[in-house]
Amino acid sequence: MQKHQDEEIFSYDQTLDELSAIFGDRLKTTAAICDQFGKDESFHPSKPPHGVIQPRNAAEVQEIVRICNRNRTPVIPHGAGTSLEGNIAALRGGICLDSGLMDAIVSVNADDFDVVVQPGVTRRQLNAHLKGTGLFFPIDPGADATIGGMAATRASGTNAVRYGSMRENVVNIEAVLADGSMIRTAKRSRKSSAGYDLTRLMVGSEGTLGVFTELTVRLYPVPEAISAAVCCFQSIGGAVDTVIEIIQYGIPVARVELLDELTLSAVNTYSNTEFNEVPTLFFEFHGSEQGVQEQSELAQSIAEENGGSAFQWTTHTEERNRMWRARHDVAYASKLLRPDGRIWSTDVCVPISRLAECIDQTRQDIKETGIMAPIVGHVGDGNFHLLLLVDHTNEEEVAAAENLHTRMVLRALSMDGTCTGEHGIGYGKIAFLKSELGNAVGPMKWIKQALDPNDILNPGKIFE
Amino acid sequence: MQKHQDEEIFSYDQTLDELSAIFGDRLKTTAAICDQFGKDESFHPSKPPHGVIQPRNAAEVQEIVRICNRNRTPVIPHGAGTSLEGNIAALRGGICLDSGLMDAIVSVNADDFDVVVQPGVTRRQLNAHLKGTGLFFPIDPGADATIGGMAATRASGTNAVRYGSMRENVVNIEAVLADGSMIRTAKRSRKSSAGYDLTRLMVGSEGTLGVFTELTVRLYPVPEAISAAVCCFQSIGGAVDTVIEIIQYGIPVARVELLDELTLSAVNTYSNTEFNEVPTLFFEFHGSEQGVQEQSELAQSIAEENGGSAFQWTTHTEERNRMWRARHDVAYASKLLRPDGRIWSTDVCVPISRLAECIDQTRQDIKETGIMAPIVGHVGDGNFHLLLLVDHTNEEEVAAAENLHTRMVLRALSMDGTCTGEHGIGYGKIAFLKSELGNAVGPMKWIKQALDPNDILNPGKIFE
Repeated sequence: MQKHQDEEIFSYDQTLDELSAIFGDRLKTTAAICDQFGKDESFHPSKPPHGVIQPRNAAEVQEIVRICNRNRTPVIPHGAGTSLEGNIAALRGGICLDSGLMDAIVSVNADDFDVVVQPGVTRRQLNAHLKGTGLFFPIDPGADATIGGMAATRASGTNAVRYGSMRENVVNIEAVLADGSMIRTAKRSRKSSAGYDLTRLMVGSEGTLGVFTELTVRLYPVPEAISAAVCCFQSIGGAVDTVIEIIQYGIPVARVELLDELTLSAVNTYSNTEFNEVPTLFFEFHGSEQGVQEQSELAQSIAEENGGSAFQWTTHTEERNRMWRARHDVAYASKLLRPDGRIWSTDVCVPISRLAECIDQTRQDIKETGIMAPIVGHVGDGNFHLLLLVDHTNEEEVAAAENLHTRMVLRALSMDGTCTGEHGIGYGKIAFLKSELGNAVGPMKWIKQALDPNDILNPGKIFE
Repeated sequence: MQKHQDEEIFSYDQTLDELSAIFGDRLKTTAAICDQFGKDESFHPSKPPHGVIQPRNAAEVQEIVRICNRNRTPVIPHGAGTSLEGNIAALRGGICLDSGLMDAIVSVNADDFDVVVQPGVTRRQLNAHLKGTGLFFPIDPGADATIGGMAATRASGTNAVRYGSMRENVVNIEAVLADGSMIRTAKRSRKSSAGYDLTRLMVGSEGTLGVFTELTVRLYPVPEAISAAVCCFQSIGGAVDTVIEIIQYGIPVARVELLDELTLSAVNTYSNTEFNEVPTLFFEFHGSEQGVQEQSELAQSIAEENGGSAFQWTTHTEERNRMWRARHDVAYASKLLRPDGRIWSTDVCVPISRLAECIDQTRQDIKETGIMAPIVGHVGDGNFHLLLLVDHTNEEEVAAAENLHTRMVLRALSMDGTCTGEHGIGYGKIAFLKSELGNAVGPMKWIKQALDPNDILNPGKIFE
């Protein structure tokens, strides 16, 4: 069992004894397991919990939370562990509640375009299950995250420009509160104006307000036809202007991703592709046969007016899959650019009118800093990612990367943007949240205090 | 000045004295004005405030709220007064803060598809202002409500099936909290995962958590082409099945409204139209010329498979406007069905798979009760309205209507639906909120207590 600073304040032994008496071997406390569950996919070091349990159902979650609340022991809900801001680190130790065994798809309501799932269901598992129903779940962060984790961090992905993020796609949440009571935030109707929007309050709360035990999320009909396109640009500005005009024109683009030169050189090496190594847009259009043709052709003419060239579009599934696989493998590909380094993945999101400027200035800054950092972006949303490739043993380099990162975030904030488009605050971006929202962080803390007076639910995240 | 029950508990005189010293004649306390501002468009009787002020800016709002908070005087934010559940009634007196003078359109950010407005801007005013920009604001409750009021009640309307409700379309809110401090809930980027979603918490909070002083809302490109269609059905079931299949097929219908026989007979009389008096769907499709033709033809074939007949579609603006004017005038038309009665407008929303059943059972109930009650519905969302035409001087009839209403709401709840699709809880539906969400009302109260410990912001609404 790990030793923790705060152990003397809280009665962790009491909690472990009580949980052990009930759950026996199912309470894991070995260092290897605790280390693993205290670490996400980011560069943040492991902050292991005292113990890990995989509850089988909501009643077990309630039992564990009640014990922890009585003993003032932190509870850290855990999905696939793919977060990027240390969101699942057990900063003060405590009990990690992993959703690995709560991975049932409870009911597919095809006529209502929704599905009820347990929190441990992953997005790929869900879409595999939906095969043959004519429906799909569009939200696709890079990793195969769990629906519970995606709701907790308000995740999005490449389809958000058309289908929205988790904010728009969670219908209701069943959650265990800090006192062990259980709530369901809403009914299953498409809309409602009944009381405070607890669903949206839980979405993005990063495990600090409740432990999710069931979620209803929206589904969409699989489009009759899908086309994909690639287009090259001489400048980031030309690419971003194309995106603005496409949206202005009302073309319901389903995906539009920007990849810069460096990203494409990494992609070409890793995925054995032959993309031109210039600023490039990847598109996808959903609709009828006629509709996707019309959308593709319109997009092409807009792109060409903005200096786009070599516009190629296809409705072939294989070509399309190959393209998106390459896009989804950007993180792995980028790693190869610097085999001795580690990836620090971060993102910001700005009003789209400021996107070209924000990316340009950031690229200039990267160049001056000399740090290797490919840029990829969900540009339809004004959202882009920086993959900082840093040797974490080199203090100077780490400091330079941190400064570069800080300048990028402050730049985004000064353009009325956000410090995190889709990764959440975790404990990595706490200072930036304050810069972003100022005294609006106050009411967040009051809400936390009201719902979790003992501060047991994922303490130390979002704010201090 | 009105007398109020609670006057002895709170120092209302002190508040009025302080406000009068600062605002002079701008503080209105005559009975006629107070009565007017204590009454919305519903059947709920007027609950007048002690005084009405129209602040000119956020600083004045802060000043007034600080005085009221110090003296424990209720503050009731007021928009156009078009709410339907007594949402703006001054149940314990206090000061009505009317947004009438805060009606500036602060900035149209065309490239970002958003607009910053003061809360008193109405939806028609906004769309008139947007003329020529190629953009529009889609949310259209029946009344010409203010953007502040629409956000406060989480309003929607006929376009919600395609464009979402206020939940999806408010980007951020600047609000004065109960202690007089001011927050801005989010930046202007399209998405963010930075902290708790205070924007969505404010949307639908009905003035109980903050007084809105500025809002950013989303805009959409005016479609290149618009077509409208009308289709008749033998049964409500055939109409609803048509809607389900249209959505399942992925047709991005912009509007789809159900009108029953009684509604159409009222419409024909009032609007001098010649619609068949049978269950009918009104459609609207947005897209390219080719796209709206394709959508209309597909919708027609689906409708015909479900017993739909006399499908007529048009791209003529005049015909289309005439049709939607008739739809928007349903409330006035219905009034003529019973000139001695008053309209009690209420709505529920259910998962769409249960909609036909819910409407059928409600119609059966209406028939047995003998009350005149046209039904109109935003059926793409599973949302429908009942316009109860009741003689409010007849106690027996009022009781029968109340029972009918209660049965409809409980029916909707039993089908996993909500007691209010778009009017909010106000004080008319407090009991139903409890039936709907059970102990999830607890955390709502804790949040209210945390943000407004003196219970000054629109007290007595949403919960007791």
